[in-house]
Amino acid sequence: MTLGVGLLGAGTVGTAVLRLLDEHAEDVARRVGRPIEVVQVAVRDPSGHRDLPLGPDRFTDDPLRVVRSDEVRVVVEVMGGIEPARTAILEALRLGKRVVTANKELLATHGPELFEAAATTGAGLHFEAAVGGGIPLIRPLIESLPGERLTRLLGIVNGTTNFVLTRMTEDGTSFDDALAEATRLGYAEPDPSDDLEGVDAAAKCAILASLAFDTRVTLDDVYREGIDRVTLEDVEFARRLGYVVKLLAVAELEDGEVAARVHPAMVPTDHPLAAVREAFNAVFVSGPNVGELMFYGRGAGGAPTAVAVVGDLVTAARLAGQDRPGVTFPWEPRRTIRPMERMESQYYLLVDVVDRPGVLAQVAGAFGRHRVSIRSVWQEGRGNEALLVLITHRANEGDLRGTLDDLRALDVVVEVRSVMRVEGEE
Amino acid sequence: MTLGVGLLGAGTVGTAVLRLLDEHAEDVARRVGRPIEVVQVAVRDPSGHRDLPLGPDRFTDDPLRVVRSDEVRVVVEVMGGIEPARTAILEALRLGKRVVTANKELLATHGPELFEAAATTGAGLHFEAAVGGGIPLIRPLIESLPGERLTRLLGIVNGTTNFVLTRMTEDGTSFDDALAEATRLGYAEPDPSDDLEGVDAAAKCAILASLAFDTRVTLDDVYREGIDRVTLEDVEFARRLGYVVKLLAVAELEDGEVAARVHPAMVPTDHPLAAVREAFNAVFVSGPNVGELMFYGRGAGGAPTAVAVVGDLVTAARLAGQDRPGVTFPWEPRRTIRPMERMESQYYLLVDVVDRPGVLAQVAGAFGRHRVSIRSVWQEGRGNEALLVLITHRANEGDLRGTLDDLRALDVVVEVRSVMRVEGEE
Repeated sequence: MTLGVGLLGAGTVGTAVLRLLDEHAEDVARRVGRPIEVVQVAVRDPSGHRDLPLGPDRFTDDPLRVVRSDEVRVVVEVMGGIEPARTAILEALRLGKRVVTANKELLATHGPELFEAAATTGAGLHFEAAVGGGIPLIRPLIESLPGERLTRLLGIVNGTTNFVLTRMTEDGTSFDDALAEATRLGYAEPDPSDDLEGVDAAAKCAILASLAFDTRVTLDDVYREGIDRVTLEDVEFARRLGYVVKLLAVAELEDGEVAARVHPAMVPTDHPLAAVREAFNAVFVSGPNVGELMFYGRGAGGAPTAVAVVGDLVTAARLAGQDRPGVTFPWEPRRTIRPMERMESQYYLLVDVVDRPGVLAQVAGAFGRHRVSIRSVWQEGRGNEALLVLITHRANEGDLRGTLDDLRALDVVVEVRSVMRVEGEE
Repeated sequence: MTLGVGLLGAGTVGTAVLRLLDEHAEDVARRVGRPIEVVQVAVRDPSGHRDLPLGPDRFTDDPLRVVRSDEVRVVVEVMGGIEPARTAILEALRLGKRVVTANKELLATHGPELFEAAATTGAGLHFEAAVGGGIPLIRPLIESLPGERLTRLLGIVNGTTNFVLTRMTEDGTSFDDALAEATRLGYAEPDPSDDLEGVDAAAKCAILASLAFDTRVTLDDVYREGIDRVTLEDVEFARRLGYVVKLLAVAELEDGEVAARVHPAMVPTDHPLAAVREAFNAVFVSGPNVGELMFYGRGAGGAPTAVAVVGDLVTAARLAGQDRPGVTFPWEPRRTIRPMERMESQYYLLVDVVDRPGVLAQVAGAFGRHRVSIRSVWQEGRGNEALLVLITHRANEGDLRGTLDDLRALDVVVEVRSVMRVEGEE
């Protein structure tokens, strides 16, 4: 007997899902144990989808009608956005129907509500496609690593910003030109602010941190800085010092507390994340037993994301009707979220100072007063002024902020030109 | 009610499994739905394991006794080797008990027999730990990618050889010295021949190719060359030309045929596999929809492998008693294996020639006669002789062998010093 699937959304991802299900019908049926068929599709304009291999009677503009249809056993949500996706998914879960979703925004903001609903009815909510496009991340984090207590996660989870930073690093292209190229190639959306400001990466960071540390982390828990203040000068100094600049999602477990943040960071060139170029994504995790793991691939795009959706759909279809969640998401708050002031990192600073004897001692004094240990310093004369490039050892964010205040108050300091975290080294 | 586990083998991996189960007991119980307990352990010398947190009555030297015990519901095999592991696993599957194994040698040689037994009784055979240590590979290949038809897999799947090649590349260390260092650091076994000759990598290649292309591939189907003929000169020319030398496991699907091979290869420095250094492993796969994916991590060692075993054990324990294989391995021969003569690759050649006019034309003629297209050539004078460095476009292995025969028959060719495949470029 055929298993009926309801599809919510038929944009880039939804269309690719329909194509893959058509191409791999036989293979999918063998893995599921029976054929699956998309019996209803909710779209904004039901008359506008003549090119899809489905009759016009399959289309509706009402997601709830799809969800409630007796023919529909599993729901695939690829419409994106909060509403009506949220209401439709909750209704499907309430009816005991398994749901596959690619909606990271919804999970990062309303995840706890959805996963609680899934846990209550045992229906199962599958979301491999919500983070990292076609990269298998969710399944390995949930199912392959119960024998490990991960301690750190570093991710390049936004293709747009990684493309821009790669062009700046490898070709010396300006930020604006690199962004224009990303838009031309389809890597950046017409309004790229969610990407550039790190909102997209922070949503993914919340989901990944939840899974890695088995506790609820939502978008609001993630500290966030975008790449708009990264200059070609920073990128060039990074190169000279043996680093590359990346927008990183960082999640750490320290003393039982979870720290989660998104910001530009310098990564050592021999770190595996440094080789993640262009619009590629990668997530790097580490723990005391497994050592270091990295998952790499295309983090966006219709076809890669659709591959992840189909993988989840096969699992959901196999489990349909069984009261056993395919995956369990930690929607309960099991751990404290560490505030940004108490997070730790290494820091890179670029400081303009007047070029006269005793300056370095004054600058070093400011660091010492706040217990920030300098790991390396490099001075470059520029006429009457000099440029100091400093890299610290791992230090507390609050202490670093104190150091910055002191530096800015010094007569010999003309300007603190740049501050950036350094990750992946210690 | 506690679920009883039987452990076969208490070496490095087995001991680490016992430790992780102890450390994560609560977490594992929550994920499984009930506590699990190792109730029996088969070891060579039952009196020699006083340091483990188990009473002496739990130990036996008879694997079959463990397998047949009524208390044992799931069997974990980490003893390695073919027998008695094969007999014990077959007996467990015959009794309908799920088995978790880390035994790549057994799977690569007797996989079809074991998976057929698992399919017959529906017992389930879990083997994430058999390839790539703690790197989640098997689960993603089987469960995450049913919506994709992969076309190529490139893997660095042997830590010993990758360590040796990394030392040769980065420090100019000789092969012998690099191997001595690997032995000292515990990366190489006392008899490293299975690693150096590519036997270990070929076994993993067979398993990965089976999963990637959904057909039976065994060790005998994998063409194999070791790293013993790789010279510092090759490594240095690779560097100058923009490549690094790696021992690669290559599996390709072309015209419905599967090609599988293990050999040293030059990989472009900007390929993600080029950044896989030291004893790390990585598997890179590509397909028309998902694009490129890479899985990276520690491919060996007791603790990483034990993490993979515990991940599988949690799945096996959740499914215990259910007639539903957690993973399905393609043990049936669904595709033809392409013989080596018909495989395709790019090639690098290092040829000593006499230095006089017309030599290059004669050399190029040999390539042309066999339809091997030269992509780049570089000539370096050395007194009366010259060194030709050639890289071809993708060519047929048989045609390349014909070209080599012709080259060696030329008066102007003193010696074909080196031939190596180039992968990851076209």
